[in-house]
Formats: sequence, structure tokens, C-alpha cells
Amino acid sequence: MTDARLTGPVRVVGAGLLGTSIGLGLRARGIEVILDDTSPANLSLALDYGAGRPAQPGDTPQLIVVCVPPDVTARVVAAELAAFPTSVVTDVASIKLAPLAELIASGADLTRYVGSHPLAGRERGGAVAGRADLFLGRPWVIAGHDAISYRDGSAVDDLILDLGAVPIEMSPEQHDRAVALVSHVPQLVASLLASRLQGAEASSVALAGQGLRDTTRIAASEPELWVQILGANAPDIAAILRDFRDDLDGVLTALEAPTAPGARRRLAEVIAAGNAGVAAIPGKHGQDRRYSQLVVMVDDRPGELARLLTEIGQTGVNMEDLRLEHSPGAQIGLAEISVLPEFEQTLTDELAARGWRIAGAGL
Amino acid sequence: MTDARLTGPVRVVGAGLLGTSIGLGLRARGIEVILDDTSPANLSLALDYGAGRPAQPGDTPQLIVVCVPPDVTARVVAAELAAFPTSVVTDVASIKLAPLAELIASGADLTRYVGSHPLAGRERGGAVAGRADLFLGRPWVIAGHDAISYRDGSAVDDLILDLGAVPIEMSPEQHDRAVALVSHVPQLVASLLASRLQGAEASSVALAGQGLRDTTRIAASEPELWVQILGANAPDIAAILRDFRDDLDGVLTALEAPTAPGARRRLAEVIAAGNAGVAAIPGKHGQDRRYSQLVVMVDDRPGELARLLTEIGQTGVNMEDLRLEHSPGAQIGLAEISVLPEFEQTLTDELAARGWRIAGAGL
Repeated sequence: MTDARLTGPVRVVGAGLLGTSIGLGLRARGIEVILDDTSPANLSLALDYGAGRPAQPGDTPQLIVVCVPPDVTARVVAAELAAFPTSVVTDVASIKLAPLAELIASGADLTRYVGSHPLAGRERGGAVAGRADLFLGRPWVIAGHDAISYRDGSAVDDLILDLGAVPIEMSPEQHDRAVALVSHVPQLVASLLASRLQGAEASSVALAGQGLRDTTRIAASEPELWVQILGANAPDIAAILRDFRDDLDGVLTALEAPTAPGARRRLAEVIAAGNAGVAAIPGKHGQDRRYSQLVVMVDDRPGELARLLTEIGQTGVNMEDLRLEHSPGAQIGLAEISVLPEFEQTLTDELAARGWRIAGAGL
Repeated sequence: MTDARLTGPVRVVGAGLLGTSIGLGLRARGIEVILDDTSPANLSLALDYGAGRPAQPGDTPQLIVVCVPPDVTARVVAAELAAFPTSVVTDVASIKLAPLAELIASGADLTRYVGSHPLAGRERGGAVAGRADLFLGRPWVIAGHDAISYRDGSAVDDLILDLGAVPIEMSPEQHDRAVALVSHVPQLVASLLASRLQGAEASSVALAGQGLRDTTRIAASEPELWVQILGANAPDIAAILRDFRDDLDGVLTALEAPTAPGARRRLAEVIAAGNAGVAAIPGKHGQDRRYSQLVVMVDDRPGELARLLTEIGQTGVNMEDLRLEHSPGAQIGLAEISVLPEFEQTLTDELAARGWRIAGAGL
């Protein structure tokens, strides 16, 4: 393709999920990619996947993308700045203030470095999970500072745009506060909640529904990586968790004397505050609009869900979202289909006419 | 149908989501249903949906199912026991110890009452959300006690089996402890987490991914109902939340001095404990097995997802679960398809051959 913004070559250091995905994505745009990794096994796996070529003496990359764990990011960035004295360097670590502070302290050449962070993690890691489309449409934060020139910094914009992501400028401080709120605190809370299930009686856990599954899903994440992230963003996370704990203490006070004056009001306020918080999360496509949901019964047989979706497609109504809900022990599921409110009635009528059991509808 | 266990009539008191669904489900089995509600509007809506017939003088129900909010459950059960001196009575409140204690204190005739609880809630309530299949395959706890005879209690088993649910016997104490763990604590934790998003900068919340959405989804639940549930099960919930808070305090100590000896270990242990907790949740169909996940790119156009699922259906491979993941700002989604591990390779090959972009696969 000739429409890529970067001219390359791009050197990618670290062949895990992000490095491999960046390599695959850039190569798909026709950009030359040089891959490096301290682990020969990781490197050859990513090379096998076609994410780039090995480094050679005399390489002069346009841009270097450091994709290594947060703890070693600053050290690797400094080494790359020194080894390639004309290249612009960025990194993709999920915390931005700590690496920058470490680089400043080390006296690295910050006129050629700006940190960034693609919001595109997965529960699975490694080159094997890499994919060229990982960043498509995802936010990718550039954590700007004043030492780098507009012209050099724009190479990082080009990287983000070439990978189909959406560049968002924030200061490192803003970034770390934001991810503490939307990623790091939810991770810790999910882990703390899920850990309560350890050693629980099987008969209790057998009553689990979709709510428990959803609230604990991300608790399956990798401890090694998270310890680095949590350690590096500790003050921002702690600030939010202290407020969380204060609210929790209020709930505990109410629960310890549930008939005391004000106790029920306090509980109601916590649930209502949660309602308001959920409403603050932007919906699909970053929009803030509400969809109507239709709940349809689907037999758990090959092809049944496809038949439903085919027939929805035939109505011409675009499905905005789809959730499946399973009944433990039953060979049946519920498909919750989100559509724009103005299409709810049409779709309900059309599906009912085709014999589908509509179990509910509404905003 | 002639294979129903109950002979009827069944009187259902309270025409909300559960009462209406029970009425619809029993009527679908050919059982006569009498509906009652203190709100004439609720009642006539549920009657319109075909969930039963109005009460008449001289009704002598075989079984009475009380489907009213937890706070008034014991009072309504006592009134029904008095008004219908030959009928067996059950209720469906999501807490079981408090109504029983209140009934014992009121001197009600416990030889004809046993409480129960279907684990089949929804975020939406009301008769309009009711459906005959609501209980299909779901656990339905019978909170037994010694005053009722085996023969009378069996009418409640028959109700559960006629509605396609799975009867599970537990003491009221066991039940309340179990739902505190799998439902009430997750609700409070989700609400407390979501409430941190109130007043957050839009640029921060714009970075939200699927993890935040999942961990906070149930925080959209109704405050009125939850205040009653939380108040009635306060001691069991508080016991679990106190342990949660102790763990949280440990995390805060670690975050306040993240380089102190043992701090990182403590954080790693919290994440690892969450891993173990998630693994304790039984999978779909109550089984404990792991599925392989295939991630496929799907354009956000009407019919595309249906086309994918049709082609999966053509391969003969049964999809065990489906999750859609949306990229904010992008007209594209990822479909994460769960299949039995032995079908992963076949399905990957078949879909790739049909031109689908497989973005990842693995356990």
C-alpha cells in the first residue's frame, strides 16, 4: 500500500502481544519492520508469524517502538536512544509517568522520545495472540511533554494512524489518573471480589449467575504484568481506592445496623450512585445513546443463533450489540439484541411473525 | 399438556416479573392460574399477557406462590395461609431467613409453608418483562424447615419441575450465605466501583474498555428492590464485605509503599487469588470445562455477524458461547467464539478458507 504515513523502517523491541501486533499491522501497510527481543524463542515465534525481519548491523530506523514490560521500559528506551542516535523512540507501557521520570533522571535525550499507550489489551498475551487489527478504532494515548519537537513527535501520530487507532493527547499525569480509574482500580476490585470465592462451598457457587461472571471476568488476568502496573501507578490507584474504601465503610456501617435511622437511605444512595456511574460510560462507538433491548429465546443447537441473526439481517435492522445469556444446566440461551429504539417495534413484530419467542423488550 | 405434576389451581400473588413469568409458565403446561395483585394496573397488565385469571370467591388453590417484594413477603404469606386454610404456600423472595423468622414470630401455620427462591432475576422488572421460559434450567432453592410435611412440601418441588427449573435444597441460613456471596456482595461491589465514575472527566471515561463495562454492568440495578434485599441479609453480606475490606486494606498498605519489602508480593497474591476465585465459578451448563476461543473480525454492517454464524453453523461445530467486543469509534467488532477445544482447529481452518479474518485463537 502506498498510503501509509510512516516511511519506515520501524524497529519494534519486544515481541509479545503488542510488539507482534504492531509488527503485523505495519507490515500489512507495507512498512518495513525490524523485530528484536531479548528472548530468542519469543523473537523467532514473532518472525514466524511474519511480524518483521531480524535486526541487522547498520539499521537506521525512522521510529523505534519499545514494547517491553513496564518495569524495564525506561531502561530499554534509554538504551535505544543511545544506540540509534537519529531515531524517534516511543513505548507502549500502560503507565506513563514513571518511565518518563526515570528517563529524565537518567539524562536520556528526551528531544527524541515521547511515550504512548494503546488501550488494546487482551486477557491472552504473547506473540501467538498478536494480530494486525488489534488497534483498529481503539484509543491510543500520546503522553506528551515539551522537550520533543512537533515534527519528531508526529512520527508517533503516524504510527497510531497507520495502525487504525485513534490518537488522544494527554499529559502523563492525566493518563495515569485516567487508567487508574477505568482499568487499574476495576482490575483490583474484580480480583478482590473473585478471591472471596476461593474455598467457597460448591453448592453456593453453583447459584452463580451472569452478574457474578461479568463482575469477575477480568480477575483471570496475569499477576506478573499487573504487579508492575499497580506498583508503578500506586499513588493514583490508592487515591481512588481510598474513596472506594470510605464508601465501603459507609455500607458496612449501614449493614451492621440496618434498621438504624439513615441506614436504608445510605444503601439506596450507593445503588443509585452506581446507576449514575454506569450511565457515565460511553456506549458503543463512543456515543452516549441508549439502545432498546430485545430478548429472544434461542435453542442451543448449531445454526439456531445464526438463523436468528440471518432473519434479523433480512429485516434490514442493524444490531448494535448482542449478548448471550446461558442457563446453567439448560440447552437453551437468551440472545439480548440491542437496536436503536425506533427499530424496536418493527424488529419485535418481524421476529414474532417468524416464530421467535420474544422474552422481553424495552430500553 | 397432561404431563404436568401440579394439578392446580395455583394462586400467584404479585404480578411483577416473577409472578407473571410463573403464571405464563404454568399456563403453558395447562395448569389453571389465579392471579392477584394489590395494584389493579399491574394485575390487568399481567392478565392481558395471559398469565392467569382473576381471583373468584370460593377459589381453593392447591398451591399459592407469593411473589411480592422481600419486605412484605412474610405479611402476605401469613395472610394467604389464613385466607386459604387448605393451601400450601411458598414465596420467591431472594432472602429466606428473615421472612421465616417473621412468620414464626407471627404464629403462622408453618405446616403449610416453605420458602423458595428462583435464581432467575433480570435487570428489567414488571409484568412486561415476564416470560414463560424465565426459569428454564435455572437453580431454584427450596429453603426447607421441619414443620412442613414431606407430602405438602412436594407441591413446591412440583412447581419448580413444572417450570423447568432445577430444585436445590438448602437451609434458609445456607441459602442466605450463598446469595450474599454470589449475588449481594457482587452487586454492592459493582455499585461502589461504578459510583467512582460519577463526575469523572469525560476524557478519562472515554478510555473505558470491555473490562470496565463488564465489572459495572449490574450496577444499573434498581435501588428500591436492592435496599430491601441488602437490609434483610445484612449480617451475611457484612461478614463477606469485612473480609473484602481487610484484603482491600492490605492492597492499600502495599500501594502506599509499593517499594517496601513484601508490597509487590502482596499485590501478586491478590491478583493470583482472583485467578483462583474465577476458576471456582462453574462454566456454562454448570460444567467446569474450558473452551477454546476464536476471535474473528466482523464488519459492523447488517447481516455480517449473521453471515459469520451461518457459516459456523455450516461447519457443524456448536458454538458454546459468543461475546462481541466493540472498538469505540470504529465500525468494526470482534466476535469471540467459544467452542470445545477439539473443534478449534477445524473451525479456524474453515473460517479462514471462507475469508474471515481470525484475530486470535486459544484456550
